[in-house]
Amino acid sequence: MRTNKLREIWTAGETAVNGWLHIPSSWSAEVMAHVGYDSVTIDLQHGLAGYQAAITMLQAIATTDAVPLARSTWNDPAQIMRLLDAGAYGIICPMINTQAEAEAFVGACRYPPLGFRSLGPTRASVYAGADYAQHANDTIVTLAMVETQQALDNLVDILSTPGLDGVFVGPGDLGFSLTGQTGMNMHDPMLGAALSQIAEVTQGQNRIAGIWVPTVESGQKMRQLGYQLITLSSDTRLLSAAARDSVIQFRM
Amino acid sequence: MRTNKLREIWTAGETAVNGWLHIPSSWSAEVMAHVGYDSVTIDLQHGLAGYQAAITMLQAIATTDAVPLARSTWNDPAQIMRLLDAGAYGIICPMINTQAEAEAFVGACRYPPLGFRSLGPTRASVYAGADYAQHANDTIVTLAMVETQQALDNLVDILSTPGLDGVFVGPGDLGFSLTGQTGMNMHDPMLGAALSQIAEVTQGQNRIAGIWVPTVESGQKMRQLGYQLITLSSDTRLLSAAARDSVIQFRM
Amino acid sequence: MRTNKLREIWTAGETAVNGWLHIPSSWSAEVMAHVGYDSVTIDLQHGLAGYQAAITMLQAIATTDAVPLARSTWNDPAQIMRLLDAGAYGIICPMINTQAEAEAFVGACRYPPLGFRSLGPTRASVYAGADYAQHANDTIVTLAMVETQQALDNLVDILSTPGLDGVFVGPGDLGFSLTGQTGMNMHDPMLGAALSQIAEVTQGQNRIAGIWVPTVESGQKMRQLGYQLITLSSDTRLLSAAARDSVIQFRM
Amino acid sequence: MRTNKLREIWTAGETAVNGWLHIPSSWSAEVMAHVGYDSVTIDLQHGLAGYQAAITMLQAIATTDAVPLARSTWNDPAQIMRLLDAGAYGIICPMINTQAEAEAFVGACRYPPLGFRSLGPTRASVYAGADYAQHANDTIVTLAMVETQQALDNLVDILSTPGLDGVFVGPGDLGFSLTGQTGMNMHDPMLGAALSQIAEVTQGQNRIAGIWVPTVESGQKMRQLGYQLITLSSDTRLLSAAARDSVIQFRM
Amino acid sequence: MRTNKLREIWTAGETAVNGWLHIPSSWSAEVMAHVGYDSVTIDLQHGLAGYQAAITMLQAIATTDAVPLARSTWNDPAQIMRLLDAGAYGIICPMINTQAEAEAFVGACRYPPLGFRSLGPTRASVYAGADYAQHANDTIVTLAMVETQQALDNLVDILSTPGLDGVFVGPGDLGFSLTGQTGMNMHDPMLGAALSQIAEVTQGQNRIAGIWVPTVESGQKMRQLGYQLITLSSDTRLLSAAARDSVIQFRM
Amino acid sequence: MRTNKLREIWTAGETAVNGWLHIPSSWSAEVMAHVGYDSVTIDLQHGLAGYQAAITMLQAIATTDAVPLARSTWNDPAQIMRLLDAGAYGIICPMINTQAEAEAFVGACRYPPLGFRSLGPTRASVYAGADYAQHANDTIVTLAMVETQQALDNLVDILSTPGLDGVFVGPGDLGFSLTGQTGMNMHDPMLGAALSQIAEVTQGQNRIAGIWVPTVESGQKMRQLGYQLITLSSDTRLLSAAARDSVIQFRM
Repeated sequence: MRTNKLREIWTAGETAVNGWLHIPSSWSAEVMAHVGYDSVTIDLQHGLAGYQAAITMLQAIATTDAVPLARSTWNDPAQIMRLLDAGAYGIICPMINTQAEAEAFVGACRYPPLGFRSLGPTRASVYAGADYAQHANDTIVTLAMVETQQALDNLVDILSTPGLDGVFVGPGDLGFSLTGQTGMNMHDPMLGAALSQIAEVTQGQNRIAGIWVPTVESGQKMRQLGYQLITLSSDTRLLSAAARDSVIQFRM
Repeated sequence: MRTNKLREIWTAGETAVNGWLHIPSSWSAEVMAHVGYDSVTIDLQHGLAGYQAAITMLQAIATTDAVPLARSTWNDPAQIMRLLDAGAYGIICPMINTQAEAEAFVGACRYPPLGFRSLGPTRASVYAGADYAQHANDTIVTLAMVETQQALDNLVDILSTPGLDGVFVGPGDLGFSLTGQTGMNMHDPMLGAALSQIAEVTQGQNRIAGIWVPTVESGQKMRQLGYQLITLSSDTRLLSAAARDSVIQFRM
Repeated sequence: MRTNKLREIWTAGETAVNGWLHIPSSWSAEVMAHVGYDSVTIDLQHGLAGYQAAITMLQAIATTDAVPLARSTWNDPAQIMRLLDAGAYGIICPMINTQAEAEAFVGACRYPPLGFRSLGPTRASVYAGADYAQHANDTIVTLAMVETQQALDNLVDILSTPGLDGVFVGPGDLGFSLTGQTGMNMHDPMLGAALSQIAEVTQGQNRIAGIWVPTVESGQKMRQLGYQLITLSSDTRLLSAAARDSVIQFRM
Repeated sequence: MRTNKLREIWTAGETAVNGWLHIPSSWSAEVMAHVGYDSVTIDLQHGLAGYQAAITMLQAIATTDAVPLARSTWNDPAQIMRLLDAGAYGIICPMINTQAEAEAFVGACRYPPLGFRSLGPTRASVYAGADYAQHANDTIVTLAMVETQQALDNLVDILSTPGLDGVFVGPGDLGFSLTGQTGMNMHDPMLGAALSQIAEVTQGQNRIAGIWVPTVESGQKMRQLGYQLITLSSDTRLLSAAARDSVIQFRM
Repeated sequence: MRTNKLREIWTAGETAVNGWLHIPSSWSAEVMAHVGYDSVTIDLQHGLAGYQAAITMLQAIATTDAVPLARSTWNDPAQIMRLLDAGAYGIICPMINTQAEAEAFVGACRYPPLGFRSLGPTRASVYAGADYAQHANDTIVTLAMVETQQALDNLVDILSTPGLDGVFVGPGDLGFSLTGQTGMNMHDPMLGAALSQIAEVTQGQNRIAGIWVPTVESGQKMRQLGYQLITLSSDTRLLSAAARDSVIQFRM
Repeated sequence: MRTNKLREIWTAGETAVNGWLHIPSSWSAEVMAHVGYDSVTIDLQHGLAGYQAAITMLQAIATTDAVPLARSTWNDPAQIMRLLDAGAYGIICPMINTQAEAEAFVGACRYPPLGFRSLGPTRASVYAGADYAQHANDTIVTLAMVETQQALDNLVDILSTPGLDGVFVGPGDLGFSLTGQTGMNMHDPMLGAALSQIAEVTQGQNRIAGIWVPTVESGQKMRQLGYQLITLSSDTRLLSAAARDSVIQFRM
């Protein structure tokens, strides 16, 4: 089975850089997969791609050695299994607030006896190799999103879920939960304290902490805190900002 | 009929800024249409969108007041008419090298007696208004691409084509034709001389010169030369560069 | 943030007319959005559009000032959040039979602390404005479908759900539930009594009652009863009837 | 090979009623194919469907016994052959103004030695039967559009083209060509005279005259003149009118 | 209402042959529906088609008299209802392990009072007839998948669910559950014993047993055991094997 | 620039095996690209894929080292250039009957000064490398289809076209042209003589002869004749035959 490069990076104690796809197009996905990210994630929660577009995006990513990930829309086993069958090498699952939710999430990602994933890796066995089913449980990455005060409170329990590789922080929702402010502010002290706490607790349990950040600077700071999967902005934000900047500069 | 904002800008002696769409997605098109371009062009020649995607992109652009344009794949009357029927407010046509080719192009864009466009503006009359057919000939913009030595030689004749609003320069192909080099070099003296000549001749005939440029700096220089439709890079290039830069900076 | 025209209509004590989309096409959606409806609803439950088509339909509606609504397939928070992130300005949710179900529905539509909607209004903030997240809770419309005897029995409790704007009646399912007959009969006395009761109770709680009706006549009658969101037939029914009538008339 | 019901209708001296598809959706196509038309035409010229959508629409029509036709975007042999390979049982070709154009059109529709159609009826042989290639030349219908003064002048020559089944009138373009007015007026005397002349000449040569009309009344009048393929409005016009009428009536 | 040919086959004590669709294309679906299967199933669980593609595949199947079935992704009432509304004549539901799960599944497939299916058979009433709603409960086939030891243990209870037509075996998951081996081995004795038991118990309760098998030989053996819906491989497996064989043979 | 494996095979005097795609799906394309073909061709002429589907199919092929080719619908420079820009590494062009047609075909495939291809390899430079434009003329394969008596008569002239790599035989059309029979018969003596002649003449001019064949046996025979690009059947034919065979065998 094709190895999961993210595991190799993490085993080496390194930090992976992750791209984030909101545009439902196999072409923009292919472009993003070629710029040098270690992994590229199709965000089905807040992005614009549905299942069918996601398939073609997974194919586009597979023209490179970037690791294909997906964020599911929710803790929905049917969707998670479909994404894995389609070749996603990891799932980031939103709104995991309790250990029970984490167990349900992991169960959908793991074949028995570790979980209850159904057998039928149609595209995955083409992408990864005919021995996919034997090695999938050791290869697929599972990251539970921590984005509420409740999840913070349950962090140790969540991290102790067997088969869970780590957590992934959505600073927008987490900051909103902690501060009541919708404008994501990476410099907010309450959010900052939580981000430090998550990194520390997660490392203490030998799990992986990942995060989405709006800027390179925030990403570098999170790397220093110990986050090992840094998601830099998104295709939509990068495109929008670059285009707007060029128009503004031209008109100056 | 909805006015064509490009005509107003040009009548005022101003320069319009144009976005360039290669990603076949209505979402990236909507994002691009919202950043402040005066017009946005779906490039069917070197972009990845076919006809069906172009329809949804024209709809996405129509959520803003950016003027929707299309570059046709070729001097193909059937395609040009379909794009106009779908609501494109202007056509940029590749590889117009002679006056006869310019006349054929313009003929496809204009209703009789000025041309031979067939009547049936299905979406255009929804986008522009029920009186579309009466005013389309005065509203739709037609720009012939000048991208070879032959076109340069025939520039005056091309510009004298009745119903043609102006020319549009593809510096990649033009520089290739003039210098034999594929790497587009906006600083090449032969190309530079040609660009100046085109601007001068076009202005001398009271027509509009447009151009595609890779950078804001080139665009500002072209504005100084008198180009009045400046296309700044493309969605794919902007996205690719922004994403690659963020990865490189993060890893520094 | 762009206002929700439906709220203005209702505040003025007026009745809104709603279009209903079953054809999975951005073109038919654009046509429907241009004929004068106050709002247009993409019906994901009994219509033929899935998520990806719904995006392009929301974009098509956004070329007009008709308010874009969606009927979700079910009381599914993941789907509801995606539709809101994509710019729907209101959700009609099927089969709400208890207050607990109504609370779950409203929770998916509202940001904390009123609900548990996740933050990430990717297209919504382009459609509605950068301040979307601050004002969404006051702008998005939530309508719970009353379509069973059980829902009727729980109507007062359902209507008292904080954050719920009102109810929406599916007379097909409701009549089926009350009478056991599948052929929707707007003149059935049991259904008629229920429709009156719903209008009365809803108005008594200062909430909005909406309904789907097969004919203009039924719609006008419902308006008299106090319904303030009248959905007139559907694109498929209108098209099918108009086409069939023209064939029959021609052959007479 | 599956017979072409249109030929049977015409042989019996009857008139066929034709539906006209502008909405690029297999669902609206299926709805239209079920209302009772003898044939249904995918209009690729002024409609919104491209090739890929047309395939699914041809499949949807094939769930009924309505004859699937297509109007090509232009006199383009590559596209015409693809539509036939995909199972279209007849082609309506725009803007045939001379006999040479008619011969080119027919050549694309007929296998050698009558034409130059390439062999490879991939879907057609599934739709029509394994013996498709032997009988296609006798089954496929070819109709050349008469929509200019020039075509009128050349009508006899056009009709004498071997393998051409008849002509099809686009009253919008024809009226525009004759009167210079874009607003299609079926009561214009010049257009009326031309419509009579076309019917008479075509019948005199034992060919079929078809036409598009905006209303049932116009269609019945054209049937009296001898037109044997009457196209009644279009899906978009029928839908738009029915929806607009219902909104207006409701608000009265 | 159009009859369900599967019921006729089963009533006659015969065995039906079922095709299995993993390729998300209406063209491959149409090809498969034409080769002689009694029914054709769109597998939404392990196949690559999402909802929108499934619609066009259901239309393609409807060009033949093969019975259109769907395997849902999960025991998800919203999706099951949508597939039925789109014209599926039967649902195969994964991972039914208890009677309660079977009841929930059947409830989504049956109109009241037998279930809680919502009324709105938009495409189904076009495919099946205007009287669809009256007869759907007697026509639609419901098959619960037995693919775990737990389901085996609960088999009698599952089969006694009112409105359930039978069970469908996924030998991959079932063998995995019984033996812990991922490589599906139809000759495994434990699996073999279970397959015999399921057939026997199901027949004893006058219900239908269906199964997926990888080869014709396995299928014939299962027919002898009493299975009455035999699914032979899948489009993807058939295509892949045939193509690979031809390359290997050519190179020999 | 990524090398063209076909050139390496041919330089080594070997024969390449080519797959043929008629199903408009990136999934079936990916499956086909994984079974061991040296190259895989998207047939836009008689297959069901349009431009947009072809893009995703080219991406799917690019997950393997099979060489992506396309058969264009016709000798249409605009389409040919788009396919090359999208990453096709060779074009098979239908119905080349004269040297002039061959020159026009080659011109569309080659950058100046060898041809008139426009510069803008948007996806090609991602697939092949940033130096694509410098090496494309030496890398892209051009094969002109010989499928008529006229082409046979002009074979030497066609083969002498500068920049043309060889010819590709369509035995269906060629046999039809030679014998007047539509049922492709690879054992027909007239066709056999022509196939031998083409191989001999082409080898004599040091060019490549390719061909489509219905069976492995025919392919092996053609390899013996000297054909160096053997296309074995098509996805649709392979799938249809394998599925039909399994149903027939099961019912025996």
